Amino acid sequence: MPYITVKLLEGRTTAQKQALVEKVTDAVVETTGASKEKVVVFIEDMKPEHYAVGGQLLSDLN
Amino acid sequence: MPYITVKLLEGRTTAQKQALVEKVTDAVVETTGASKEKVVVFIEDMKPEHYAVGGQLLSDLN
Amino acid sequence: MPYITVKLLEGRTTAQKQALVEKVTDAVVETTGASKEKVVVFIEDMKPEHYAVGGQLLSDLN
Amino acid sequence: MPYITVKLLEGRTTAQKQALVEKVTDAVVETTGASKEKVVVFIEDMKPEHYAVGGQLLSDLN
Amino acid sequence: MPYITVKLLEGRTTAQKQALVEKVTDAVVETTGASKEKVVVFIEDMKPEHYAVGGQLLSDLN
Amino acid sequence: MPYITVKLLEGRTTAQKQALVEKVTDAVVETTGASKEKVVVFIEDMKPEHYAVGGQLLSDLN
Repeated sequence: MPYITVKLLEGRTTAQKQALVEKVTDAVVETTGASKEKVVVFIEDMKPEHYAVGGQLLSDLN
Repeated sequence: MPYITVKLLEGRTTAQKQALVEKVTDAVVETTGASKEKVVVFIEDMKPEHYAVGGQLLSDLN
Repeated sequence: MPYITVKLLEGRTTAQKQALVEKVTDAVVETTGASKEKVVVFIEDMKPEHYAVGGQLLSDLN
Repeated sequence: MPYITVKLLEGRTTAQKQALVEKVTDAVVETTGASKEKVVVFIEDMKPEHYAVGGQLLSDLN
Repeated sequence: MPYITVKLLEGRTTAQKQALVEKVTDAVVETTGASKEKVVVFIEDMKPEHYAVGGQLLSDLN
Repeated sequence: MPYITVKLLEGRTTAQKQALVEKVTDAVVETTGASKEKVVVFIEDMKPEHYAVGGQLLSDLN
């Protein structure tokens, strides 16, 4: 605890994901007082054909 | 806002997904008064071996 | 199946929620071919102090 | 109803998933009084590069 | 890991929830080989006016 | 996009939540290159009787 889920468009590199979970974890530890080793982060990749804003799939906007 | 997640069995065509996000977005706009460009839809595909009803995977029922 | 989750700001009336689930269900049936009685909708109310855009809680923007 | 989501590391066999949904469903029926045929289980596979504890991806810990 | 979310209608007693998390945890340990102390269960209560099947809120069906 | 959900035990102050969403948003912007105004954070409060580790509710461990 806490548990953080980050849903973002697919295509980030492993280095970006490593930095993402490290920095997000630090931000949560700093502001909530949670122990670092208790912070869990899940990443969820989204495909552009599975994400829509205003009724249009992202894959149709590109 | 609002944010809508539609979890459904994999296998729908792109045309079906385009129609799905368009019609669901319209339904949300019409009934909640949200601005169309603020409505976000996420689609989540389920595999038949990851979905069970009554203790049996869908892949075992077909 | 399908399963739809609608996350929206708290404060909608019961009549709005009734209309929302009815119209969203119809939209899903029409576009995916699912049987109406199989469509499940979950509503999740968000408090303005639990929702942030651009690093600011909605409760601080109003 | 109820709806159960099991998020676990990818790599379980089909036989393990069959046993998992069967036993979890039985546990829910026994303790909540729900009808067995109404219990729904979703399985979500996680990749080791999408799961972090203490700021480190599982794929970097192995 | 694993992480289990149980979404169910509000109104269960504390004793039922205690039994639910205990039995579900045992079922997951037995079938996946996870260590018991690593199994996490989240319970989510649903209100009848936030849950619809076939386009009708449960609160309108009772 | 991205969308971040932070599930944590209830009881944090508004000031902690303000700091949490600000710092987490900054961490996501810095590591993914997303525009700050596109980053969305949802907070979900958990009650101790709705969260179990090792088959025991947190409310029974305190």
